[in-house]
Amino acid sequence: MAKLSSIDPYIQPCKVVFQPSGRSGVVAPGASLLEAAHQLGESIVSVCGGQGSCGKCLVRVEEGVFAKHGIRSTAAHLSPPDADEERLLIQQGAPTAARLACRAQVLGDVLITVLPESQAQPQVVYKTLEQQMRQIDPAIQLVRLSLGKPQACNSSQQERVLSAIREASEKAGAFDYAALQALPEVLREGGGALTATIWNRSRVIRVQQGHQTRALGLAVDIGSTTLAAYLCDLENGELLATAAATNPQVAYGDDIMSRISYAAEQPQGCERLHKVLIAAINGLAKQGTAEIGAVPADIVDAVFVGNSVMHHLLLNLNPDSLGHLPFLPVLRDPVDVRAVDLGLSLNPGAQAHVLPLVAGFVGADAVGVLLAEAPHVQDEVTLLIDVGTNGEIILGNRSRLLCTSAATGPALEGAQITHGMRAAAGAIERVRIDSTTLEPRFRVIGQAVWSDALAPADIHARGLCGSGIIEAVAEMFAAGIITASGRFDPTLHHPRLIRINGKQAFILAGSAQSATGKPIVITQSDLRAVQLAKAALYTGVRYLMQEYGVESVSHIVLAGAFGSLIDKKRAMMIGMIPDCDLGRVVSVGNAAGAGACAALLNREQRQEAIRLASWTEHVSISLKADFQERFADALAFPHACDLFPHIREGSCDAD
Amino acid sequence: MAKLSSIDPYIQPCKVVFQPSGRSGVVAPGASLLEAAHQLGESIVSVCGGQGSCGKCLVRVEEGVFAKHGIRSTAAHLSPPDADEERLLIQQGAPTAARLACRAQVLGDVLITVLPESQAQPQVVYKTLEQQMRQIDPAIQLVRLSLGKPQACNSSQQERVLSAIREASEKAGAFDYAALQALPEVLREGGGALTATIWNRSRVIRVQQGHQTRALGLAVDIGSTTLAAYLCDLENGELLATAAATNPQVAYGDDIMSRISYAAEQPQGCERLHKVLIAAINGLAKQGTAEIGAVPADIVDAVFVGNSVMHHLLLNLNPDSLGHLPFLPVLRDPVDVRAVDLGLSLNPGAQAHVLPLVAGFVGADAVGVLLAEAPHVQDEVTLLIDVGTNGEIILGNRSRLLCTSAATGPALEGAQITHGMRAAAGAIERVRIDSTTLEPRFRVIGQAVWSDALAPADIHARGLCGSGIIEAVAEMFAAGIITASGRFDPTLHHPRLIRINGKQAFILAGSAQSATGKPIVITQSDLRAVQLAKAALYTGVRYLMQEYGVESVSHIVLAGAFGSLIDKKRAMMIGMIPDCDLGRVVSVGNAAGAGACAALLNREQRQEAIRLASWTEHVSISLKADFQERFADALAFPHACDLFPHIREGSCDAD
Repeated sequence: MAKLSSIDPYIQPCKVVFQPSGRSGVVAPGASLLEAAHQLGESIVSVCGGQGSCGKCLVRVEEGVFAKHGIRSTAAHLSPPDADEERLLIQQGAPTAARLACRAQVLGDVLITVLPESQAQPQVVYKTLEQQMRQIDPAIQLVRLSLGKPQACNSSQQERVLSAIREASEKAGAFDYAALQALPEVLREGGGALTATIWNRSRVIRVQQGHQTRALGLAVDIGSTTLAAYLCDLENGELLATAAATNPQVAYGDDIMSRISYAAEQPQGCERLHKVLIAAINGLAKQGTAEIGAVPADIVDAVFVGNSVMHHLLLNLNPDSLGHLPFLPVLRDPVDVRAVDLGLSLNPGAQAHVLPLVAGFVGADAVGVLLAEAPHVQDEVTLLIDVGTNGEIILGNRSRLLCTSAATGPALEGAQITHGMRAAAGAIERVRIDSTTLEPRFRVIGQAVWSDALAPADIHARGLCGSGIIEAVAEMFAAGIITASGRFDPTLHHPRLIRINGKQAFILAGSAQSATGKPIVITQSDLRAVQLAKAALYTGVRYLMQEYGVESVSHIVLAGAFGSLIDKKRAMMIGMIPDCDLGRVVSVGNAAGAGACAALLNREQRQEAIRLASWTEHVSISLKADFQERFADALAFPHACDLFPHIREGSCDAD
Repeated sequence: MAKLSSIDPYIQPCKVVFQPSGRSGVVAPGASLLEAAHQLGESIVSVCGGQGSCGKCLVRVEEGVFAKHGIRSTAAHLSPPDADEERLLIQQGAPTAARLACRAQVLGDVLITVLPESQAQPQVVYKTLEQQMRQIDPAIQLVRLSLGKPQACNSSQQERVLSAIREASEKAGAFDYAALQALPEVLREGGGALTATIWNRSRVIRVQQGHQTRALGLAVDIGSTTLAAYLCDLENGELLATAAATNPQVAYGDDIMSRISYAAEQPQGCERLHKVLIAAINGLAKQGTAEIGAVPADIVDAVFVGNSVMHHLLLNLNPDSLGHLPFLPVLRDPVDVRAVDLGLSLNPGAQAHVLPLVAGFVGADAVGVLLAEAPHVQDEVTLLIDVGTNGEIILGNRSRLLCTSAATGPALEGAQITHGMRAAAGAIERVRIDSTTLEPRFRVIGQAVWSDALAPADIHARGLCGSGIIEAVAEMFAAGIITASGRFDPTLHHPRLIRINGKQAFILAGSAQSATGKPIVITQSDLRAVQLAKAALYTGVRYLMQEYGVESVSHIVLAGAFGSLIDKKRAMMIGMIPDCDLGRVVSVGNAAGAGACAALLNREQRQEAIRLASWTEHVSISLKADFQERFADALAFPHACDLFPHIREGSCDAD
């Protein structure tokens, strides 16, 4: 690994092409092939979650010059296998030139064949989404027209364009007002050549001079803490750019209940929360389009998901009634509204589609997760957990789907944590603690390698993002730094265990490794916040399992919008999710956002969303008589290897 | 008449009830019964147009106390008959207590029976409109609801209201966004009692706390020179108030061609014309609602008519393409748009409906005239002339309708005339000139009597409105002050014939009679402007008659938005309209505005408008080879009694 530390951080990104799928793209040098696969949407089996312990993620490195892909690949464009990897490759009877995708780090352009056995992973859900994404049928169409000179006054400019659209075998019945206003100039200046942007085969929402090809769409997942935006090409479905930001509403309250209070009780509270959110979304649109040399006015369609409160605040609907029994939303139906009516600075004719709510706090984000993961088309019972400040939990299969929401709090998104931060450069996203020495190593976003492969001054750690927090707590528990109750082990003495203002804390990154010159620590209250969050999720999960009548689940899908994928093993170690074969636990990143993309790129998904929202059964858990008791029970960290046989098998305290 | 000059101008308005129709209302003291009938919508035969010469407008004055109507009527509540009237009453064999409605001036409350022969006037067109107006079926409905407490979260506020609307046997599928935003507060504050305003049986556009009864509608006729607004109660169809203003666009050009140039050539020209127009309409809405103690936010539906250029400028559509061949509008279809999208300050949910265009310059105002006068349901061939700065001419019956437009210019609306003004207080609206002495007398808006019944200092004349200009020119021609060519008779010498800056002029009102202390005159260029206007209309009429294949017409309907009714006899005298039995010439006031009201109060009329706009054939006259020649021929005033046998019968040079 030492060799990698010498990689020039300004080195060019490396091109990676996967066969037989043909998926390709560029990744930062130092990324593993498994990480590259995640980033580029390639599915590779990984039972151990990329820990190098299962030997399932076999790929073959193709060597030579590959004109088709424009790359020259050699084995030297990957980090060499270490002793562990070589041992596993032999154990697996791997062919020549095979590598473990989780171990091979990309150093240059490579062409990789995913071996058949490594493609066999039953990631049905993920594939379903990908198939949907390939079936591009967006609400938006570009129709390129060439009109002749008008002959008679017994017509109109609008009639001439609509008639040309019909002749092009497309459908549109009328112009939106904004498009109509642009029409005279487009016809005067364009000499008859124009491009009509049609929404939902019904209305012309934009006209442009000449024959244009750009129609951008924006999908946005509005989390209580994190906003994630996806910019797509609406003609070919390509994801062009992504952008994320902290929800500026956090200044008015950390969780959805405090947002409801602010909206309901402060004068113009609702409008203020609405406006800061819209401003932030406008910022994301600007940022995303700037990345590809476009402008927000190129965006003609947008799809939004978010929990019920975020949904209401996006629409400037007072969420007051969500704050008290029976937690009634203002509306559950999907909303089609002009983007400009929400204050969005996109194309003047741009449409905004907001996915429907299920009920109560189970909002459009849960519907997005359902679209992306499609548990309703499967026989096996899947547990979907969308980890966020408001957690959504879905359990079921093709015969029945249950859902509920959990007041997770913002801890798992890095908020309300002493050194918590958003998943941005400098955030610690991976943590390992040696159970003997209690010495941690970690990986920081923006760095290609782990902290122990870098000089302290080169690390520039700034804080912990959500995935880093989960890993830190899991590793502290596995290493015995904290007890099952979530308290620091009082018998332990170690230079990293310090007191800040009389409260105990664990130094994860020393001041020399930190960009601020101050150590990055995990405090007792940070541990408590993680406990509350995971207990809320786990309690919700158990209620749904009880209601469904199952004692275990076949599949678990972990979703969340906070940057890195959640480490499934460590999520299980802290007791956030119930026991399950680790190979059947999938971490999918922002599934709600993926669902928003699916609805952006395929109109049928918007119809599917309506069916799913009404079919899914809502379970209201906060009113259950034994809720407090169960929640209190779930606060403790599980005695490792007791509750979770699958962790024992995969080895509890080492990777 | 002298006696009337002593009437206190602050006297109470007089109540007038007509039998057998039951129509009633109040009028200013001094109004003739015929004028009262016009104002209150009562139809009384008047062949001579109220000149006291035909003796057809016979009514009987009922005397005594009439509890039902709450009035005490005596013959003394009317001005006594003069010698001329007594002679005509005898000639007509009139019964006891009979009066000529055009001669009897109202001095107090009266109950009047319109005699059967005086009701027989075949004002089919006018009645059709009135019947339509009585069939109230507006696009807007108020539904008053009482909701119980919500029980479950598997619903939403919107669903609860929509379900209550269905239970009330009404229809609505969704909420408009603005209404949705208001819903949480209405439900929170209103305790379950609310009123939903539904548009077109489809969308809830407004919600209000409690059970409300006010739903106002605004119909606006946008003329190039004059704006006329009608405020109606949408539940009972009652006309509550009217308001008029000069179109502020006149500052940017007098006629539609100069408006097109301004819009097409000036930077932001179109938007500027749009904005000043919208500001003026907002002013009318404010004025009209203030009159009845309401506010513009009470207005939930609005219907607009106007010529094609006004239509485009209302919608902020650049009318550039209307300025050159083939005079193609941007759109002809009716438009439904949110009022707020036009910049209108009505209810946030208010809808705006713009009637369709026929073609070229034959716009939504012509469609309004068609709705109001319904020539397409009649057997007889009707000629409809909507006199305005852009004149619309319609000819036909149930088998065929032709239409065209005429560039009349603003003269007939009082603009581009030396002392022209809008039909407001101080405007001379009636003129008579003694053909022997050449002494004029006139009547001023706001005065109950003619100028010769008032002391000069009490007259306060300020200028001439459209109807006054037509009468002045007709009377000057009849009195021989001007010749058939439209020039002052060079052989004539009279103290009223003066020279201003070397140009001849006729003093209509002396400086003592004028509010400004300066005489009100008719100049040579005023005469020319009237000639150009009437020649444009007459030429258009003749082309339509030729196209239709008729040499004469059975009915003529004169419409116009400029205050008083057009004097049909004098319109014929100056050659504005072809010869026709004066008894079959009807002056109906603002028919385009009446059509807008009809569409405001009845949704079916909006459908009818679409059918009429597409069925009516447009005749493009400005491209005809002999247009210039015919137009030049039409400039002259007709040699009285030559072209118009019906004027001869009714006496050419005296009333």
